[in-house]
Formats: sequence, C-alpha cells, structure tokens
Amino acid sequence: MTREQFPQNALSPEDRAELVAQLTACVAPARVLTDDDALQTWGRDWTRFHDPAPLAIVFPKAVEQVQAVVRFAREHTVGLVPSGGRTGLSAGAVAVRGEIVVSFDHMNTISDFNAVDRTVVCGPGVVTEQLQQFAEDQGLYYPVDFASSGSSHVGGNIATNAGGIKVIRYGMTRDWVAGLKVVTGTGELLEFNKGLLKNNTGYDLQQLFIGGEGTLGFIVEATMRLTRPPRDLTVLLLGVPEMDDVMKVLDTFQNSIDLTAFEFFSEKALAKVVEHAGVQRPFETETAFYAMLEFECLNESIADQAMQLFEQCVENGWVIDGVMSQNQAQLANLWRCREDISETISRWTPYKNDISVVVSKVPAFLTEIDTVVSREYPDFEIIWFGHIGDGNLHLNILKPETLPREEFLSRCNKVSRWVFEIVQQYGGSVSAEHGVGLLKKDYLTYTRSIAEIELMKGVKKVFDPDGVMNPGKIFDL
Amino acid sequence: MTREQFPQNALSPEDRAELVAQLTACVAPARVLTDDDALQTWGRDWTRFHDPAPLAIVFPKAVEQVQAVVRFAREHTVGLVPSGGRTGLSAGAVAVRGEIVVSFDHMNTISDFNAVDRTVVCGPGVVTEQLQQFAEDQGLYYPVDFASSGSSHVGGNIATNAGGIKVIRYGMTRDWVAGLKVVTGTGELLEFNKGLLKNNTGYDLQQLFIGGEGTLGFIVEATMRLTRPPRDLTVLLLGVPEMDDVMKVLDTFQNSIDLTAFEFFSEKALAKVVEHAGVQRPFETETAFYAMLEFECLNESIADQAMQLFEQCVENGWVIDGVMSQNQAQLANLWRCREDISETISRWTPYKNDISVVVSKVPAFLTEIDTVVSREYPDFEIIWFGHIGDGNLHLNILKPETLPREEFLSRCNKVSRWVFEIVQQYGGSVSAEHGVGLLKKDYLTYTRSIAEIELMKGVKKVFDPDGVMNPGKIFDL
Repeated sequence: MTREQFPQNALSPEDRAELVAQLTACVAPARVLTDDDALQTWGRDWTRFHDPAPLAIVFPKAVEQVQAVVRFAREHTVGLVPSGGRTGLSAGAVAVRGEIVVSFDHMNTISDFNAVDRTVVCGPGVVTEQLQQFAEDQGLYYPVDFASSGSSHVGGNIATNAGGIKVIRYGMTRDWVAGLKVVTGTGELLEFNKGLLKNNTGYDLQQLFIGGEGTLGFIVEATMRLTRPPRDLTVLLLGVPEMDDVMKVLDTFQNSIDLTAFEFFSEKALAKVVEHAGVQRPFETETAFYAMLEFECLNESIADQAMQLFEQCVENGWVIDGVMSQNQAQLANLWRCREDISETISRWTPYKNDISVVVSKVPAFLTEIDTVVSREYPDFEIIWFGHIGDGNLHLNILKPETLPREEFLSRCNKVSRWVFEIVQQYGGSVSAEHGVGLLKKDYLTYTRSIAEIELMKGVKKVFDPDGVMNPGKIFDL
Repeated sequence: MTREQFPQNALSPEDRAELVAQLTACVAPARVLTDDDALQTWGRDWTRFHDPAPLAIVFPKAVEQVQAVVRFAREHTVGLVPSGGRTGLSAGAVAVRGEIVVSFDHMNTISDFNAVDRTVVCGPGVVTEQLQQFAEDQGLYYPVDFASSGSSHVGGNIATNAGGIKVIRYGMTRDWVAGLKVVTGTGELLEFNKGLLKNNTGYDLQQLFIGGEGTLGFIVEATMRLTRPPRDLTVLLLGVPEMDDVMKVLDTFQNSIDLTAFEFFSEKALAKVVEHAGVQRPFETETAFYAMLEFECLNESIADQAMQLFEQCVENGWVIDGVMSQNQAQLANLWRCREDISETISRWTPYKNDISVVVSKVPAFLTEIDTVVSREYPDFEIIWFGHIGDGNLHLNILKPETLPREEFLSRCNKVSRWVFEIVQQYGGSVSAEHGVGLLKKDYLTYTRSIAEIELMKGVKKVFDPDGVMNPGKIFDL
C-alpha cells in the first residue's frame, strides 16, 4: 500500500467536500465529522509520532453502517482506519493518508449476558473498564487489565490481542474471545464461533482477527467470556539482588502456588516512584531488582506455604527482604510500586520498547541489552519493569534533561536497532503486547521471517482484496 | 480438488513403479513402503468408511525429507496425506486417491526440555502418552488427555486441535502449543512463535495450522507447554433426574471450586458399563443422568465446601444421590463409569456424532434431538455422554441387533441430517473435537457459512497453491 493509492489528502477542497457529502449520504444516519478538532482527536492514538490527516470521522451505530462505509471505501478507493479508545502505543489506529476513520464510540452496548455460559456480548466500543464493571455486577470477573482500561475499547483490545498484568494466570485477550462478528474488506459480515467452547470445523479464522489490527476487517461485535472473581488476593514483594534469581523465585513459587501475577521492576524504577509519586518504600533494604507475586490466599495453608517458600528463597540467598500484604489496603499500596512506574517516568519522555523472550532467557537477555545500551549510550538512564512471568519486558530509556527531543529520538531509534538485533538473536518478539501498527512495521523482520510476512500479505488479500482496511499497518502491500 | 486431479491410482503398474522409484530416490534415506499391508495400515485412521488406496508410504526422519516429498508432490502433481497415530474419527488421515502418505512415525523425539519455561520440543510423531509420561518424569503435567492417548501423535493432536476430558480446566491442544515448525504446500519451512508467551507481531498464522488438519502444511516440530501436576484429585459423582438440573449443578460448583472435569452420561450409558464392563454401580439410586465433577481437593476446607455444595444441590432437588471419592482407587473406579462407556458400547457398532452447543443450551438441545430421533427411529437406542462442561455431547446410536449394517448406516446418515439441522438452529458445531476430514465435509455448512468456507479456500491457496496438502479434506477446492 503506497501513499499514492489513497490520495484523499491531495484532493481539492471541492472534491473532498463532494466525497464527504457522498459518504454522509451513504452511511446515514451515522454521524460524520470533518472539523479539525475531530480529525485531530480521532485521527490518532496515544503515539505522537505522526500528524493525523484523515478525510472524515464516521460514527456507525449499526453493523449495516459499517458495511456501508466499507463498500463506499472500495468504490472510492479510500482507506479505512478503525478507531477504538485510541490508547494504542504502536500507531495502529492513526490516520495519516486521508483515510476515513471508523470510530466505534457509538457501538458500545453490553447485552445478552448468560450466567451459565459466563459470556456477554459487547459492541466493539465497550470500554474495558465498563466490561470489568459489568462482570463485577454479575458476581463475575473479566481478567484482562492494564493501565488504559479506563479508555481502551474491547474491539481495540481484540484487534491488538491486549495483554496486561494478569497474563500469567489468565492469558491474553485472545483467551477471552468466545465469538466475533467482523466486517471484512469486501463488506461481508462474518460470524465466527458463536460462543462455542469446542468447535473443530476447519480453520479458526477468528484467530486471524485477534491481533490482526483491523487490517483484515473490523470487529463489530464480540462475545466475551467471564470467569469467577479471584478471592483474597495477596501480594508478596521481594527484594532480589540478582536477575538470575528472579527466575528461580518464579520457578519456586510457580511449582506450588497458582500465581495471578508475577511482575518485576528495577531499583531505579522503584526509586522514581518513591521520590516522585509518594509511594512508600516497601522495606528498607535496597536491591537491584524486585519481584512482585500475587496469588489467591484462599486459606491459612496457602498463606503458610507462601511463607515457607519465601523463607526457602531467603535461605538460598535469592531474596534478602520481603513483605506480604495483610489486607486489601496494603495490597493496593504494594501494587502502586509497580503500577505507578509508567506514569511517574512519563515526565522524562521515555522511549518505550515492549519486547519479549522466553522466560528462561530473560536474565541473559536483559543483561546483554543493559550492557550494550550502557556502553553505547552512557548518558541514558534505563528503567526496566515488566511482566516477567510472561517474559515480557518494558525497556524505558529516559531522556537526559539537556538533550533536545529530536536528537533523543534519533539516538533512540539507533538503540532500537541494537535492541532488536539482540531480540532476534534470542528468538524474541519486537512487540510483545503493543502490536505493530506503523511504529514497529520496519522492525517486523526481526521477529517474523520474510516468508511469513509474504504469507500474511497473501492472507490479507483474501479478506481485503482492495487493501482498504487499515492500510499500511503491520506491513506495506 | 477432484479425484481426477490426482490420478495416481489410475496409473499403469509400470508408471506407478517408476513414480515410486523416483520418490524413493528423492526422499532417501527415508524409508518408502508400497506393500499391500503397509498401504492398508498407513492409508487410513480409525474410521472404516473408505478403502485406502495410497501410492506409497514415506517415513521421513528429518525436516529436509518432508520438504523433499512436498517438492516431489508439487512436481508430479501427487497429493500428500499426513499420518500420525491414525486414531482420527473423521477420516482426516485417510488416503483414497493414490496419495503419498507421509507417516511421522520416525520423527518421534522429545528434546530441549526447559524447566523454567516449562516447555519441551516434540517431533510430530511423539505419542501423546509419551509426552504425558515425559512431563510426569519432570514433575510436570501435560493435560490434554483422551481415550486414544496411547496411540495418537502430538502432530495429529495439533492438526485436529484435540480436546478430551480436561478441557474445562486446561483447554484444547491449541492452548498448549508454544511454537510450531511447519512445511507448507510450497515446501517452505516456517517457524512460528518460538515458544513465546507474548508476541503480537502480525497475524498469528500458527493458529491456522492448529486444527487445520494438514491441509495448509505439515507440522514437523512442536514446542509444547507443560504445567504443574494436579494434586489430590477428587471425584464427585451425582445422580441428577433432570437434564436442566445438570446445568444448575455445574453453575453451583463452578462458582466456588475450580473444576478439572465436568462430564455427564445417561442411565442407559451407565447400565451398559455396569452390565458389560463389570463396573460397580456408584450408588443404588438410578437417575436419568449423572454428573461427574473432578477437582483438586487441596485441603479440608475445599472438601467441606464440596460437601456443602452437594447438600445445597440435594436441598434444591437437583441431585438425589451422590458419592465422593476418598482415595485414588475410588477415584479410578468412579472414572470408569464414564471412561468405559465408549469401549463398552462398541459392540453395538455405534454411530457416533460429536456435536456441541453453548453450555446453557445443552438441555433444550439434547431434549430436542432425543425427541426427533425417538420419533423417527423408535427402534434405535440412544446413548448420551460427553464433556458437558464444554457443551460437547457424544450422541451414540446403537445398531439394533437384527438390522443389517448397511441399512443401519444409511438410516443413521438420515438421522445426521436431522441432528445437524438442530445443531445449526442452536448455533452449534457439527464437529466439536473430531475435526472434519472426509467424513464431516458434506455437513460443514451446518456450522460454517458459505462465505467462511470460501475464505478458508482462499487461505488454503496462500499456503498450498497447488493443493497437494491433504487434498479433499475439510472442503473440496
């Protein structure tokens, strides 16, 4: 997909107006916005590397209107960009080429809750937190959770296969999709799986749309699974001097207790939240790394077992201090040590990488990246944190105060190449949970082979023969 | 794919011999068999509805030999049929058109076990039980389990996304695949996902090969996940007069206890195993249905809770009798009530259907099918059992002793149409866990739309442009 294929941003004002008028008639009664504010707001996500330049924003309320806008796009050779909560971190929902943005803000109904099946039907525009709250109101639980839950949409979560802080126990968004309705690039409505738990009838096409970033079609309805809520969650925060030992701690606990989270962060990260977010240091001892475990403390014997495992880790010299939450207030406070990192470091304009390797390789991988970045960029401060139980690390490089933003970015892009070469060497992923979008497109070959990318393009052509669905995302055609 | 495209079974004996000689040279040193016994043995699976007619059986030992046979197939326009443990129930691994059967019997090595990642690398020919045993030897657990675990292969499990008796807790085979190496229809070797837990870099192509029945390519290596073994498994077997109440029992227990299994069977099924398999009736009271729950009884409080829930079910009138296993011997005996059904009824040449609906619809669905079959075929005895916690029912129709086999089959095929119409009406699946193969191909439209099937064909062409990979399975091109 080249820029020239979708030249709507090169149209004369009259032709643009005519095109928008036709669009408006075609998708009526769906709302269409073309004012600058709207184009700026709905034309991008949380990334700030591209200037939004959409043709118009459409707000369908019904599946038929989504189908109408796809048919319009094919007929007029206009690209379409799906837009959810606009919290993406890879520019997957950014419109830079005169595309029509299809916002799902108005398709946000929750319906058809079934207590026996523990499923609920969501419009793509349902906010993650709205689904979490709905589940709670039914005495159930929707476990996919992350910083942007208050804004992100279920449709966007699915299109990017969102992860978050509970993956070690509950998996990714993929694991909670029981059925999908999608509109493909031909305007066809497909209904996948219908909420079934077992259905081995040919290719599981639904899986392509999960994490497909809207490039094959748009999600117009999702049947999501819920589960029983966790009970008596308890957090254990441990000071671990050596990265290698973080993995031994994980292994020790995982063999005995079903963990709901296993997170980690560095002393540098903790120091920032203690200094700037008013978070209380969990214990006096400073260690290079901290491991944070969460589990359901269903009864005394699990609590005893956790204490025994903790002591075992101390005896082995892996852990030198630690604290266990005794109530929900302490649990919340301990979580802040981890959850406040991202917001706290945002003042240093961090350059973020969301990378993963298999869990056993994390220590060597982290050390190697640390070494390379420290050697090549001694003036950069690196903040590590992440979902280490899943092998998912967030590498944050803080901008030195005196370094101009542009120069920082250009140097970080060079860092990225170094980092991604190490990722490739370790068989890792250049995007563990943020997707590819526009931002990671140039780095895709570090994780996926040329042959795989060619096959992806082939698959795209099957579902979107004219290339109108979120063009230029993941790969160029 | 029509029969005429792969006319190797119409070749003259000389031409066949020449083709086999070329094949043998091409895949050397892999073994090639063409004797009648071999063709009969490796030319089919557990189904007995087709006469095997392969050209030859190839036993590759290495990935390169698989690639060589694919290139040979393309060049000579011969179909290839993958062959694992040959335990399939949908004729997915049957060669009826002069295809070359690629048996993975010699690619059965387990390697690269990693205790931290809890992953292990399997050749496609590793027997399921071999993997289960390997896991056990490491103090871990491979949870996908079913009647054919002693013969079925890991590659076949993946290609058919095998389910079994622990799906309610552990999911399908899909959930245990951490990475795949496949050879596509162009002979290209692809390596998917490399064991990563989180990897959002474009379409998850691996998912297409899971349950793809070898029609897109052949699995030549799989990285499988293991987990901690279940502890202190306990079974509760309950007598439930009304089908509706089986679902209420499920709901009651599921809200409080994490179940590892929730199976069901009818009194007719139990009567057969009591009479013919020497299984002891679990309690005196006869009820129309039985629900069988399994869970980890990790401590006294869970045991108490299970008893309370049981009493609650009795008070509500849902359950009228029940028994809880007190030790492993009792657990094994109670499981026999469920596990011996399939073998016991095999003497009646049962006509099997493997269907599913969402769990909440099971009672109405089962009643409707029961009514239709009893009305239209009053002389047929119906045995119900299945994984009801997943909405997966096995409908078995027993052949009346005096009815000739051919007539029984032809009448059953008529029953199937009735059944599948009800399946479609309920939004269910015509193949919950057995796959499509040749056997369910004609019924695929009861679960998948024409549009979906067309898209599947499009996807097939991307991975297998010449249509040599397991031709004629799932759909005809």
